[in-house]
Parts: sequence; C-alpha cells; structure tokens
Amino acid sequence: MTLNCQEVLDEIHREIQPLIGRGTIPDYIPPLAKVSGKKFGMALQTTDGQSCEIGDAAERFSIQSISKLFSLTLAFRLVGTSLWKRVGREPSGTPFNSLVQLEYERGIPRNPFINAGALVITDIILEHVDDPQKTYLSFLQQITGIPSVKISKTVYQAEIKSGHRNRALANLLKDFGNLRHNVEDVLSFYFFQCAVMMNCTELAMASLFLANNGEAPVAGEVVSQRHAKRINAVMLTCGTYDAAGDFAYRVGLPGKSGVGGGIVAVVPGRMSLCVWSPALNSAGNSYAGTKALELFTTKTRLSVF
Amino acid sequence: MTLNCQEVLDEIHREIQPLIGRGTIPDYIPPLAKVSGKKFGMALQTTDGQSCEIGDAAERFSIQSISKLFSLTLAFRLVGTSLWKRVGREPSGTPFNSLVQLEYERGIPRNPFINAGALVITDIILEHVDDPQKTYLSFLQQITGIPSVKISKTVYQAEIKSGHRNRALANLLKDFGNLRHNVEDVLSFYFFQCAVMMNCTELAMASLFLANNGEAPVAGEVVSQRHAKRINAVMLTCGTYDAAGDFAYRVGLPGKSGVGGGIVAVVPGRMSLCVWSPALNSAGNSYAGTKALELFTTKTRLSVF
Amino acid sequence: MTLNCQEVLDEIHREIQPLIGRGTIPDYIPPLAKVSGKKFGMALQTTDGQSCEIGDAAERFSIQSISKLFSLTLAFRLVGTSLWKRVGREPSGTPFNSLVQLEYERGIPRNPFINAGALVITDIILEHVDDPQKTYLSFLQQITGIPSVKISKTVYQAEIKSGHRNRALANLLKDFGNLRHNVEDVLSFYFFQCAVMMNCTELAMASLFLANNGEAPVAGEVVSQRHAKRINAVMLTCGTYDAAGDFAYRVGLPGKSGVGGGIVAVVPGRMSLCVWSPALNSAGNSYAGTKALELFTTKTRLSVF
Amino acid sequence: MTLNCQEVLDEIHREIQPLIGRGTIPDYIPPLAKVSGKKFGMALQTTDGQSCEIGDAAERFSIQSISKLFSLTLAFRLVGTSLWKRVGREPSGTPFNSLVQLEYERGIPRNPFINAGALVITDIILEHVDDPQKTYLSFLQQITGIPSVKISKTVYQAEIKSGHRNRALANLLKDFGNLRHNVEDVLSFYFFQCAVMMNCTELAMASLFLANNGEAPVAGEVVSQRHAKRINAVMLTCGTYDAAGDFAYRVGLPGKSGVGGGIVAVVPGRMSLCVWSPALNSAGNSYAGTKALELFTTKTRLSVF
Repeated sequence: MTLNCQEVLDEIHREIQPLIGRGTIPDYIPPLAKVSGKKFGMALQTTDGQSCEIGDAAERFSIQSISKLFSLTLAFRLVGTSLWKRVGREPSGTPFNSLVQLEYERGIPRNPFINAGALVITDIILEHVDDPQKTYLSFLQQITGIPSVKISKTVYQAEIKSGHRNRALANLLKDFGNLRHNVEDVLSFYFFQCAVMMNCTELAMASLFLANNGEAPVAGEVVSQRHAKRINAVMLTCGTYDAAGDFAYRVGLPGKSGVGGGIVAVVPGRMSLCVWSPALNSAGNSYAGTKALELFTTKTRLSVF
Repeated sequence: MTLNCQEVLDEIHREIQPLIGRGTIPDYIPPLAKVSGKKFGMALQTTDGQSCEIGDAAERFSIQSISKLFSLTLAFRLVGTSLWKRVGREPSGTPFNSLVQLEYERGIPRNPFINAGALVITDIILEHVDDPQKTYLSFLQQITGIPSVKISKTVYQAEIKSGHRNRALANLLKDFGNLRHNVEDVLSFYFFQCAVMMNCTELAMASLFLANNGEAPVAGEVVSQRHAKRINAVMLTCGTYDAAGDFAYRVGLPGKSGVGGGIVAVVPGRMSLCVWSPALNSAGNSYAGTKALELFTTKTRLSVF
Repeated sequence: MTLNCQEVLDEIHREIQPLIGRGTIPDYIPPLAKVSGKKFGMALQTTDGQSCEIGDAAERFSIQSISKLFSLTLAFRLVGTSLWKRVGREPSGTPFNSLVQLEYERGIPRNPFINAGALVITDIILEHVDDPQKTYLSFLQQITGIPSVKISKTVYQAEIKSGHRNRALANLLKDFGNLRHNVEDVLSFYFFQCAVMMNCTELAMASLFLANNGEAPVAGEVVSQRHAKRINAVMLTCGTYDAAGDFAYRVGLPGKSGVGGGIVAVVPGRMSLCVWSPALNSAGNSYAGTKALELFTTKTRLSVF
Repeated sequence: MTLNCQEVLDEIHREIQPLIGRGTIPDYIPPLAKVSGKKFGMALQTTDGQSCEIGDAAERFSIQSISKLFSLTLAFRLVGTSLWKRVGREPSGTPFNSLVQLEYERGIPRNPFINAGALVITDIILEHVDDPQKTYLSFLQQITGIPSVKISKTVYQAEIKSGHRNRALANLLKDFGNLRHNVEDVLSFYFFQCAVMMNCTELAMASLFLANNGEAPVAGEVVSQRHAKRINAVMLTCGTYDAAGDFAYRVGLPGKSGVGGGIVAVVPGRMSLCVWSPALNSAGNSYAGTKALELFTTKTRLSVF
C-alpha cells in the first residue's frame, strides 16, 4: 500500500479541530503552563524518505518524558541489556511518579519510562560519559541532523525548583542503593533531559531509527535491529504511563508521550510520527494528540495488530 | 517472505529440548499436578491455509486462562465495547489473582485477562445466553471446526473445590456491585471455561480469526476486523499476567497463557500459534513455551515490532 | 474519689441531646437501617456493685462487632495465648473490612477486632466446642446473669444474605490456610455472633470482668487477671477500627464499638460502661456514643492516661 | 501501694542479664553501630520525688526517636491542638519510615511519632521560634534541670549524610504542600533533635511531667493536664512504631522508643521510667529494654489496664 501521507495528515488536521484545547495544561512546571492550549502539530517520516507535516509541526516544545526514549537508547548503546539488572520492563499499573511501587519492590523501578526508572537510566549514563549534558545534546543533534537542538534554561530552572516528587524518588532509590551518583547530580541531568526543546518534525526524525531496524538516515546505526525492536516493545507496554493499555487498544502503535503535550509513535518498518498539542487527558497524555494518532491508524490500518 | 513453517518448528523442537521440564508444575489444582513436565507441543496455522505441528501438539491439555481469550471474544460478540464499562484494559502490574488492586479500584478489574476481569466477563455472558455451558462449547467447536471439544469433569470439580481465591475475588466483586448473578453461578461457569481441554492444533485454529481480520476459516466472521485488532492489543499488554512487558520484549507478539502450560500467540495478518509445555516460570507462564515463542520470532523476524 | 454515677450520666444525657442523631445509619444490613437514629442510652456498672443508666439503656440492639470482644474472651478461655499464632495484635491502620492488608500479610489478620481476625477467632472456637451457637449464648447469659440474651433471626438472615465482603475475607483466609473449617460454617457462626441483641445495661454487666481482674460478679473468674489486662490492651489499640488513636486521645479508655451503634468501655479496676446511639461517624463508631464517653472521662478524669 | 523502686529495679537487673545483647545493633547510622550491645541501664522517677537507677543509667546515648516526644510537646506548647490539621493521631500499621501510606493519604502523616509526622512537627516548630536548635536544647535542659544536655555532632553529621529515606519523606511532604520551610532546613533541625545525647536518669526526669498532670518538678507546667493525657494516649497507640499493639499488650504503658536503644515509659499519676539497651528487636525497639519494662509492669501491676 502506498500512502499519501500529506493527504492523511490534512484529513486528520480537519477532523481534529473540535478537539484541540480539550483537556488540561499542567501547572506544576510554570513555563509549561504558559504554552497555548490551541497549538496542534503533527509530522511523519517514512523509512523510504518521505516526510510530511501539518499545523504547528515546526514549533519547538518541551519534550519532557519523550526524553526517556532517547535516554534509554543511549543507555542501551552504553551498557546493552545489562541495564535490566537495575530496572524492570513491566507496565507499572500506577501513575508515573508514584513511590508506592518503588518501596514495595525495594528500589527496582518497574520500567525505564516511569520517573524512577529514568532516574536509574540517568545514573547509568552518568557512569559512562564524561560530559553528560554535551553527550546527550550531541546524540539528539546527530540522530536528527539538526545542530540547533538545545534545552530551555527556563524550563530547566523551573524543574529544579519544583521537582520535590522527583527528589523524593531519587532519595528513595539512593536509600535502596540503586543510584551510584550523588542525588542532586542525577536529578540535575534528569531535569536537563526533560528540558530539551524539539518540534514534531525533529522528533519524528529522531525516532525514525526505531522504525528502520535501528538505523538513522544520516547517523547510521543507532542500535542493533534487535535492540530497536525491544525498545519498541517497551514503548508499547510502558510508554504512556498507566494508559498504556488504552493507547495500545486505540492507537495500536509503540508510543512515548510527555507532559509537554508531545507523543512520538513508531510504525515498525514503515515510519515514525510525532504529534503535539499541549492540553492533556487525565492520564497525562495529549488529548488531541492521542485522538490524532487514533485517527491515523484507523485511516491507514497501520496498527501493529 | 515465504515461510517453511515445518522447518522452523522442527528447528525449535531440536533447540528447545534442554529446556523442557524446567520450571514448576502448579500443585493447587490436583489434576494439573499429574501432567508430565516432559510434554512439549507446538502448532501453527497460517491465514493462507498452511498448518504445521511438532511434538505433543495433538495431546489435549487444560486450557485454563487461555479460555479468557475466548470468553472476551464471546462477550465482545454479545455486548460490543459496552463491556468496558465494567472492566478496564490496562496491565495490572500485580499477580493475576490479587485482591489488592480490586479493592483500591473499587471493584473494576484492571483487564479481562486477570481472574477478577474474567469473572466480570463471565457475568456478562451469563446475562445474554440461555445455556452458557452449551454456548461456550459450541462456540469453541465452531471456530475450531472440531465437534469433540469438551471439558474435563475432573478438572472442573477440582477447581470448584479449591477455588478459594477466586471465590474471594467473586465475593469482592459482588460487594462492589460488579456481579449481577449469584456468586456461585458465576464461579461455576468460570471454572467450566478453565476446564476446557484442547490441544495445540485446536487452539491455533481457534485463534486464527485474530490473525485474519476477525474471520475464522470455517465459521466466517467471529468479530469485526476492528475488534480483532483490539483483542490483540489487550492480549499484548495484559495477556501474560505481570510478565506482559517481558513477553512483549522477548517474543513481541500478542499472546495469552494459561497455568495448564499453554500459550496462544498471534502474528497479525499472518498466522496463529499455540505452544504447550506444563512446567511454568515464576510468572506462571510455560517456561519452555515462552522460550519456544522467543526462538520463533527470532528466527522468523515476525515480531510486531 | 467517690463518684455519683447517676449524676454524671444525667449531666451527660442533658449535654448530649443536640448531638443525638448526627452521623449516618448504616444501610448495608437492612434491619439495622430501620432503627431510629434518635435513640440514646448509657449504662455503667462499678466493680463495687453500683449500677446506673439513662435514656434507652434498657432497649436491646444488635451488638455487631462488640461480639468480637466476647469471642476473643471465649477463645482465650479455650486456647490461651496460642491464639496469637494465627492472628496479630497490632492496629491495622485500614478499614475494618479491608482485604489489602490481609493479602500483603499472607493471611494473618492484624488483630482479633477487624473482621478477618474475628473470622479466625470464630474458626478457633468452632474447633473446641460442640454446639458453638449454644456455647456462645450460654457464655453471654452467664456473664450477664440474664438468661434471655439471644440473637435476632432477622439480623442473622440479613447478614448471611448481604455478607459478600466477609465472604471474600473468609475465602482469602481459607486460601492462605488460616481457616480450618468450611468457609460457610465459619461465616454462619460469625454472623450469629454479630446478630446477638443486648442492651446497654446487659453489655456493661457483660464486660465488667474486664474492669474487675477477670472476675464477673455472678459467674466468677472469666479469665485470669493477666488476660483481662491484655484484652483491655488490645481493645485500646485496636477496638475502634481505624479510629483507635482518636478514641484513645479523646476518651482514653479501652473500648469496643459495633456498627449497631453500641460502644463498650472499661475503666480498669473501677467500672465498665456501655453507650448506644445508632448514627455513626465516618470511622463507623457511634457519633453521640463517642462524644458521651469523651464527656464522661472529661468530667470524671477516669481516663487511663 | 508503696513501691520499693530500687528493689524492683535490682530484681529486673538480675533477671534481664541473659537477654542483654539479644537483637541487632542498627548499622545505617555509623556512630550508633559502635555502641556496645552489652549496655543496659534503667531509671525511674516518681511524682513524689523518689528516684532509682541501675546499670548504665548514667551513660548518655543517642535519644533518636525519643526526641519525637519532646518535639510533639514543644509543638503543643507553641500551637496547641491546631497541629492536628497537619498530622493525624492514628497508628500507622506500617514501618516508621514508609512512604506508601504518606502517598496514599496525600501528605498527611499518620501520627507525630513516625518520621514523616515528626518532620511536619519540626516544620511547625521552625515556624514559631527564632533559634530552633537553642530553643530545643533549652527546653530539654529546663525539664531535666541538667544544663549540660547537648547533641553529638558526630551523630548529627552521620544522620545528615545517610538520611536518604528521610530526605525522600521530606520531599514527598513538600510535594504535597505539608512543609512550609525549605526541605534541607527541616531535615537539618530534625537530625539535630535525633542527635541529642541523654542518659536514662535524665530521660526519666524529662518525661516526668507526663506522669504528673503536665508539671515538671523544677520547671513547673510544661503542658496542661489535658494535653499531658493526650500525649500519653498518642504514645500508647503510636509510640513504638508498628509494634504499638504488642507493647501495649506486654507492657501496658504509654512509651516512646528510639533506635538508639532507649525507651521512655509513663505510669500516669505515679512515675516515669527510662530503659536503655542498644540491641533492637525486629520492630526496631530495644529487645532487653522492652523485656525489662514487661517485667516491671508484671512485678508492680502498674500497667494502665
């Protein structure tokens, strides 16, 4: 099936209009609260080189937890599957920032896509690179081919200031012996990752390797084919907080969302997508974004199921 | 890619030998404890009519929780998506028979594949059919084309006798108002479903509609294409208890397991599989069976990811 | 200090008037829902033979969980401290009928005054007496000296019919191996205990042994002095569900409440009291009853603290 | 009954010998791990001026959580019962440093004697005094009459360094809005309190006001009679972590323990006691200390029950 991707995105753009702005803009990170709920963008990159976009696809936003996808990839490159000694790969069944499960399970986070898991991944990266912030940005610049990718210092500062819950998680991990670095160093690098600014087109490009057997168009092999599939599997079961089951049911693609309103999704072998709209549903995923992806797989039948 | 399925199964059969028997035979249902841990069978049905099998693929075993897949399908046929009012579709993050989550979430089970969820599905079926046991067996006979499919009365009686945990779950559901029928009627029909005896070939045939846009080869449309995809999605995120993430990571296919040692898996658009080996890993899924499916997707690259 | 007990009760009766009826009549056991919320009675028995009462102290009501006090006493007589092998003596920190803690703590109930604990106590009694219902009533008749003490068959039937949560608890206990008798036999005897009808004067008399070194005025030694103190200790830390801390803080006496609106309290060495008023506070204890006991210890300074 | 207190203590000293050293010395605060497990001391102060001591009663140790008793008293003096808006007074049913309950109950700690509760009490004190460390020490010096009471800087530094769990609790409280001061300021003052060094005689003297209607022998009224009773009530239901029920059952007195091996206990109207022995039972209370107090109430029948 050849897909006229621009036509599909245009159709979605028309149909999604009434839903844009539904949901809530999170207010616990002040700079995020200032973004207009009316924004909506979507971009798509195919493995054979097509690329389409609509709406605000060129406007950068705070990638927030989508960064967990790139951190996991980086950690895979650095230490391979040994990372699973310190973090699980099961859905959590609880909100992304809960401490309950972490205490019951004695400091082993359920998966790398909840905050506790990403803190452990961050600790792993810190152990293996000299200049972690630079390494992280270079990696994103490489896989997107866009040298201007950078963080928002305003968001970074705001996260450091308001991150009591993440600070509680990090201290609990430390107490259980599952952080090797200083708590504040881990948090600081974690918040740095969350504060990266990218747009839909850049994020679709950055995740194309996951649809392409591990290879990025410009940068070459990011991870092996096997690892790319595995990252997709973890995304599908754990990528959208405690709405992973619903996302699989409605959208049917591996995806990773962030509270900045972005969602990245992958059609294995075919393409990567990114949608952005800041107002969130009750599970913390973009309301219009989730709906747009649902429209996409309904129209194209590209669900993995 | 054309697949010589018999060759693949034969290869798996050779490689899996050292692992057969690893794990534990569950002892809480006495008739199940008597089955030899040395059994191993595997069968495969493609949507274009091929069929292959190895080992003990023709020996019937207790399908146990694999029945939850057929119960959910039946309920979908009877009431459609309205069933989601009474049961969720999120991974549970807890063992299959836990009461903790059910109490916290006030009687709405996490998904139809944990025991509490299957009890609610059972209650829904009871509401819409006159002779539930007959309906259930007829349905299985239809989609397999095998009129001799039936239950083991020994297993059925043993489950009724030992099912204290399920009785606790059913009473808690009743207390929360999420069972409409008498607790013992629901349990009795639930245990009936678990006590069905089928072999790998029959189970692969019975689940082929999930790989075939909802259509069974002989019986015609079982559910719509859309519903078939959705059942696959729920299987992938919730089908193997609290090891769903690991199963997705290793195998990469929607699958549903039972404590009888069987696992059904689906390659959307291509084929359905069933593997059986009674000794279970710590998550309650067949040890050799899970490994055999992992070998299968590694060899064939047929993971959905 | 000599106490003019009638004067004190009369004063309380006057002051409590505006509070009678505040709170909620529980509706899950239909016969209890029919009792008027305007009822209020209080009775007191001293170890030196005084006895006073006010209001509806002579009207019998459903003793409900106050029966747990007498069941624990009976079990102490039958098996002594060996009962602590099967039930703990720590406050639960959760509602009286929660299954969560019981599952986490693998079938050992926190204490004999939550429902799960009382079911284990019931199982222990069943093991040691031939005609448990008769034994139970005889025991109450003996320690009160009132041969007419009996159950309400209407309440008994209603409990059997609506007791899904207790049935869930009993099945979970059975699953963990902490019930030796048939689940329905245990439940039936448990509901029998809850269905006993007594009035404030009878209940004050029935618990006088706890204030009197284990001796009942007519019946003689009920338990040893040491055991009487220990039962008082368990009452103080566990007797009023998850409001035990608040009850100790406000009232300062060992006490045991029931959802029928009764509360028994003990002033060690001095006297026993019973208050009754059917409308309950949010923790399931009589609203006016708790306040009346608080007034009592404020006026008399008889708190144990 | 006149009590020859020295005789009683001497008897206990003889009988307790075989138990001294049983249990475990906690190792998570290095300076505490260096104290000899063979230490045992006990002291008693009566409201009519008697005072007795045995063993190592004059050797100072780290009072640790016993400080929570004095912090609660200080907070009562500063803000009265309004402190209950920010902390409960129910037993927790979970270990002293658990985050689970705190998350479920949205940042309101169960009681002032678990770590989370004491952090809130610490925050309250910080709000009302200018020089909190000085105020705290002055208060202890006043109620003991011993001007040399001070902290161990070694313990203080060690706590600051190793307190990841407490840091997690404090950040979670901050996240829920139940800390008004800077997290590190609250922790620093909290660790200061834990690091106070006192001996048995000093601690018995310091808690005598709780047995004496709120009045300290030298310092006069510490709190009102009513508040003294209430503090005793909270101690009895919550003072010994999740062994409060067992402590009430065995000892039958309001008591507060610390991981330094000390336990303070109160006989209302009569006397205060302190026992010290560093090796702890599995609930974190001094093994020999608990036994010694049990012997004391068995011998003297001074249990409140």
